[in-house]
Amino acid sequence: MFGKFGMEEVPGAFGTSASFALRLGQTVFSSASLLFMCLDVDFYAYTVFCYLVTVMGLVIPWSITLLVVDAYSVFIKCLPHQRRLIFMILLGDMVLSYLSLAAACSTAGVTDLLLDADGSYCPPKLCSRYQLSAAMAFLSWFLSSASCLFNFWIFPSL
Amino acid sequence: MFGKFGMEEVPGAFGTSASFALRLGQTVFSSASLLFMCLDVDFYAYTVFCYLVTVMGLVIPWSITLLVVDAYSVFIKCLPHQRRLIFMILLGDMVLSYLSLAAACSTAGVTDLLLDADGSYCPPKLCSRYQLSAAMAFLSWFLSSASCLFNFWIFPSL
Repeated sequence: MFGKFGMEEVPGAFGTSASFALRLGQTVFSSASLLFMCLDVDFYAYTVFCYLVTVMGLVIPWSITLLVVDAYSVFIKCLPHQRRLIFMILLGDMVLSYLSLAAACSTAGVTDLLLDADGSYCPPKLCSRYQLSAAMAFLSWFLSSASCLFNFWIFPSL
Repeated sequence: MFGKFGMEEVPGAFGTSASFALRLGQTVFSSASLLFMCLDVDFYAYTVFCYLVTVMGLVIPWSITLLVVDAYSVFIKCLPHQRRLIFMILLGDMVLSYLSLAAACSTAGVTDLLLDADGSYCPPKLCSRYQLSAAMAFLSWFLSSASCLFNFWIFPSL
């Protein structure tokens, strides 16, 4: 499981097809989270929901950019692993994965509190959308943190 | 900044004095978070506060154990870096750092919501204790995640 890979062969690291799949998943889940939270919902009323929307608004362009770069690397021409490039990707992934986890957790916590408060704050239909949005943000965090770990794995050998 | 270190010389990795300092900080901050939340506060009323208390109850023994092991390694006899041992420490640190971040964020989100709700749910003195507890949990997360990253840095070379 933890054998020595060459730096090109680590699945999930930048430029591989596994990384492409991870980025695709991040794009899908973060977009779903944003849509569940935004569409027809008055999310401005709560600070944490605004925070979730802000974070997802950062994660989506980041994931799409790297999705395109990975697609280029997989299908057209393999890009070299430059130390500086991997470091920037690593840093961005780490920051965004922590931000998504923070957003997902605070959304889940607040939704739970709103559900407990005898239904006056949160009609069931709305609350289930908040929950779905938090779940999607968790999935997006999970994939983003997987990307981060795979890139971190190859980084010391560069 | 990212020169090649030998595996023994990475500051902050298992068995170094920097790691000892990190573990000490984790122990102090997680205990402070637990005490701010528990002492004279009716935290059972909210799910997320119970979650914070549970997580801190896991982080404290973990930090203390590794504090003792690091102290042994620094002051008495340098322990070897076994691959299996570092992997277990790495895994534990990663899980606990994610759990602390989740607890800190959900506590901060719920406290913010309680503060917004016209003061009826949360007297100012109580709310400031919740905030302090969340801040301490954030600091504990930060140190825990630093430990995790330093150990992850040396892991591929083992």
